[in-house]
Amino acid sequence: MDEFMQAAIDEARQGRQEGGIPIGAVLVRGGQIVARGRNKRVQEDNPIKHGEMDCLYNAGRQRTYRDTVLYTTLMPCYMCAGTIVQFKIPKVVVGESRTFGESREFLEAHGVAVEIVDSEECVTMMREFIAAEPTLWNEDIMEL
Amino acid sequence: MDEFMQAAIDEARQGRQEGGIPIGAVLVRGGQIVARGRNKRVQEDNPIKHGEMDCLYNAGRQRTYRDTVLYTTLMPCYMCAGTIVQFKIPKVVVGESRTFGESREFLEAHGVAVEIVDSEECVTMMREFIAAEPTLWNEDIMEL
Repeated sequence: MDEFMQAAIDEARQGRQEGGIPIGAVLVRGGQIVARGRNKRVQEDNPIKHGEMDCLYNAGRQRTYRDTVLYTTLMPCYMCAGTIVQFKIPKVVVGESRTFGESREFLEAHGVAVEIVDSEECVTMMREFIAAEPTLWNEDIMEL
Repeated sequence: MDEFMQAAIDEARQGRQEGGIPIGAVLVRGGQIVARGRNKRVQEDNPIKHGEMDCLYNAGRQRTYRDTVLYTTLMPCYMCAGTIVQFKIPKVVVGESRTFGESREFLEAHGVAVEIVDSEECVTMMREFIAAEPTLWNEDIMEL
């Protein structure tokens, strides 16, 4: 496993240990991790803190994102995909898109390169979470 | 001026007084304001705190947004538009779309009703801000 996707998975697992939703992300520039984040809906009682958003929150104000890559364990939702487009992040590496995700076409239509790793580890992590916490998951993807 | 758009403008003006970017938003359900927010890029040194995002952050976890309307002084960027789509907010009332905004087509394609008030007050507020702080504005819309 790529070290950056592994770092995103580590964030996701830490989130699950905290009682949260296991989705993690890291922002990378020039082979270095700029910031890490994980879904904090439960931990911070907040709906905008998806993994990708928490990572960008933690990165603070960056002069540009054009030289960055965002790694995330799960295909971004439209909030996170819209943010990637708005921030002009040119590439997103996605752990898996089997359990969720409809934003690929939107991302690619706006010039964002989408690389899907299709990691069994990411799929298993999400499937176990969804089976254990279906209501929480449906809340997070606004399907209640 | 509609009382909810006036509340969003009040948030925007408070943000400007704090040294920030004058964009405000309120979330309304059943004729009541659920939450208020304003752009806090400067105040919290953070790029994801656009007015709409700060408002939804302040609203916390809501069981549903299908019965809400989001009022915002400026046409949403793709981050905020993606969030409106993801959260299934059915309607957004926009103060003005002359100084910024390319997300209307995306919102409408995803079934969001977009009402543009085209308020001179909102246009003037943004034009004065952009003239005074062009670099800050370009940072906020990721055009640096």
